[in-house]
Amino acid sequence: MRDVISILDFSKSEVLELFELTDEVLSGKFKPRLEGKIVATAFFEPSTRTALSFTSAALSAGAKVLGFSSDEATSVSKGENLADTIRMLENYADCIVMRHKLDGSAKFAAEIAKKPVINAGDGKREHPTQALIDMYTVRKLFGTMEGLTFGFLGDLRYARTVNSMLRILTMFRPRMVYLISPPQLRARAEILEELNYPVKELTDVRDIIGELDVLYVTRIQRERFLDEDEYEKVKESYRLEYRTVEKMKRDSAILHPLPRVSEIDRRIDSMPQAKYFLEASYAVPLRSALLHEVMAGD
Amino acid sequence: MRDVISILDFSKSEVLELFELTDEVLSGKFKPRLEGKIVATAFFEPSTRTALSFTSAALSAGAKVLGFSSDEATSVSKGENLADTIRMLENYADCIVMRHKLDGSAKFAAEIAKKPVINAGDGKREHPTQALIDMYTVRKLFGTMEGLTFGFLGDLRYARTVNSMLRILTMFRPRMVYLISPPQLRARAEILEELNYPVKELTDVRDIIGELDVLYVTRIQRERFLDEDEYEKVKESYRLEYRTVEKMKRDSAILHPLPRVSEIDRRIDSMPQAKYFLEASYAVPLRSALLHEVMAGD
Amino acid sequence: MRDVISILDFSKSEVLELFELTDEVLSGKFKPRLEGKIVATAFFEPSTRTALSFTSAALSAGAKVLGFSSDEATSVSKGENLADTIRMLENYADCIVMRHKLDGSAKFAAEIAKKPVINAGDGKREHPTQALIDMYTVRKLFGTMEGLTFGFLGDLRYARTVNSMLRILTMFRPRMVYLISPPQLRARAEILEELNYPVKELTDVRDIIGELDVLYVTRIQRERFLDEDEYEKVKESYRLEYRTVEKMKRDSAILHPLPRVSEIDRRIDSMPQAKYFLEASYAVPLRSALLHEVMAGD
Repeated sequence: MRDVISILDFSKSEVLELFELTDEVLSGKFKPRLEGKIVATAFFEPSTRTALSFTSAALSAGAKVLGFSSDEATSVSKGENLADTIRMLENYADCIVMRHKLDGSAKFAAEIAKKPVINAGDGKREHPTQALIDMYTVRKLFGTMEGLTFGFLGDLRYARTVNSMLRILTMFRPRMVYLISPPQLRARAEILEELNYPVKELTDVRDIIGELDVLYVTRIQRERFLDEDEYEKVKESYRLEYRTVEKMKRDSAILHPLPRVSEIDRRIDSMPQAKYFLEASYAVPLRSALLHEVMAGD
Repeated sequence: MRDVISILDFSKSEVLELFELTDEVLSGKFKPRLEGKIVATAFFEPSTRTALSFTSAALSAGAKVLGFSSDEATSVSKGENLADTIRMLENYADCIVMRHKLDGSAKFAAEIAKKPVINAGDGKREHPTQALIDMYTVRKLFGTMEGLTFGFLGDLRYARTVNSMLRILTMFRPRMVYLISPPQLRARAEILEELNYPVKELTDVRDIIGELDVLYVTRIQRERFLDEDEYEKVKESYRLEYRTVEKMKRDSAILHPLPRVSEIDRRIDSMPQAKYFLEASYAVPLRSALLHEVMAGD
Repeated sequence: MRDVISILDFSKSEVLELFELTDEVLSGKFKPRLEGKIVATAFFEPSTRTALSFTSAALSAGAKVLGFSSDEATSVSKGENLADTIRMLENYADCIVMRHKLDGSAKFAAEIAKKPVINAGDGKREHPTQALIDMYTVRKLFGTMEGLTFGFLGDLRYARTVNSMLRILTMFRPRMVYLISPPQLRARAEILEELNYPVKELTDVRDIIGELDVLYVTRIQRERFLDEDEYEKVKESYRLEYRTVEKMKRDSAILHPLPRVSEIDRRIDSMPQAKYFLEASYAVPLRSALLHEVMAGD
């Protein structure tokens, strides 16, 4: 029984153990048994992928699911504070999977709740289970997570999945990590300070495209820009083009936490480097394995 | 494992087989066993009846259900395209039941998805499972689906259930089909061209009311009219009155896919011809039988 | 198979029986078995606590749950009347748990439906299952429900939980019931006329705070006031203060149906009299026991 708030709540050996369990779920060797358990999906901010994949993971492990998909449908809209809402959910479920727009909200909830809380995205801070899916995909593709060259492209300032990825990489000694973003969306200093591996910041992915093993692309969100023209310009320069991918190593991989809008040219989908749909297919088995680790044997 | 996009995806013998299975579900002789299966209800357009009856059908067969009930709650609202949303859902479920406002969206989804897709209404095109429920009701009431006289009343231009009904009737040689609508809501030429039975179009149901075995009533929607006055006028003339039903044959039947607003006088509910609530009671057993045929034995 | 519309649908001995069953659910001695049953949660008005706690109660008893959480998502938004919506739900579920903004809507639904209807709040009229949870808490705390002194504080005019509480107290001979509210939110005459125990109305809780065994606090809602200033003033005077609670008997109890906004100073949460979170923890076992009584053995 434990909380999952930051990716750093896991030690390296716990990550490896979880990935081995995910292998067994995926191959059918192990079936999580969560009969009699109830999972609450508390999505104060809407999400489809994360909420439905946790739901699918829980249901396929035999657990039941209840919850909500926006704060309009909750007592929050009557003015209730988060602490009271969390105390309520604890009465109804054995585990709370939670997304909230405020940084640190998941940690706050975990302090209130006696039941385990899984952070499914808190503001611009972390989204640890997405990073687990991402790294699991890396491991499946490369057979190792060590010594690889990564590029992160797009919004590195507000993308919580990137924060979780940069942090999990501290366990796996990457050869080099390139951070490719427009100047206004550079990774935050407080994250960069934590990193124990070589990092270079740049603004044009084409400068290093041939070096990459993994290119991790994120969506650039309109609401991060004050100026519509500026947004359009940035969006265009950070759109991944077919011609760019042609220069990638044949066995390199493009990842994306999805949903994507226009940041990856759709013609790339059929190129061998496009691994984001494969990545998405690991969400359910990994989250099943995680729910098992968090809840089984209570 | 198959898709259900148009009613014409079924052969006549498949329809008859499905109806026999529905008989057995209804009588309790057969219980669909979908334990371990997950059904996604992907309602990009809101619906209550269709979504909840599929949910009830799936749950009572032992399957689990996940999904959404409007596209506001989905990544579509973040700009994701339908293909990516469908690819996502495939990872979470064994079958996708889908409603979408665009004509042809269900067919498109079925081309993307490896898992079976069931069309629960695509734009103004088709709603095949509703037509199956309608015809099943006809068979229960008349002992046959052949050689009957049908009238379709109301909006024949935008009502997808009417399209599916007109198409399924090509299997059952109706004696005559009357299409009764205001001029601006006449059935589409491309549907009429497909029909292999006698059809007459008219504007006043009272002209042929005594001839009908089945009167199928549909809702006339305000949004189909540019002019509010015109809508009010049409609505009034296509409202089914008590006096009109008194002229129907005693053993004839009024059907309606529901929900109704004001197009059937509520006093008609207690007349012997009113069969729309009976019709509604067949939705769950028929959809259970259908889910079984689509998913069992995968 | 029965409806639960008003708290007065229960006799005193039925209340006591239900509480004994709840004891057994809570201790794990009895596990409701509702396998194969489907509960519809028909929330025409949003709610989180009531809907999710009924859902948790049903799921943990082995039943399945379907439903909706606002009338926007239903055919009601297409203009369907309540009777037709209820007839629809009956086809999908074995029991309908319903919240609706109209007084008397639950009774109306129960007259339409052959399946049992449980009132989860109808307008400003009743919320019987909340009163059962409240009184169950009283019984757990005091060992008896007889001969106690109660105070009801806040909105006594529109709070349906207070109506249900005042009515259930007619079974338990309270020594005295104080009704403490602003003049514009006094309890309704038609309720007061029904009561068979001593009642005093007043406007300041401090006048009798030391006498109370149970203080039941309710939220004062902005929408009950035409004038914002008036609302702010009233809200302030009916906010329960730390200093006031210090004057309560040590073994007295503060209850609140939750959610609360600002009507209870948060520092009170850690005082011995604060029992509203304990009260909330009884919602699931009591509603499980109730669903069992309503549905088991059909």
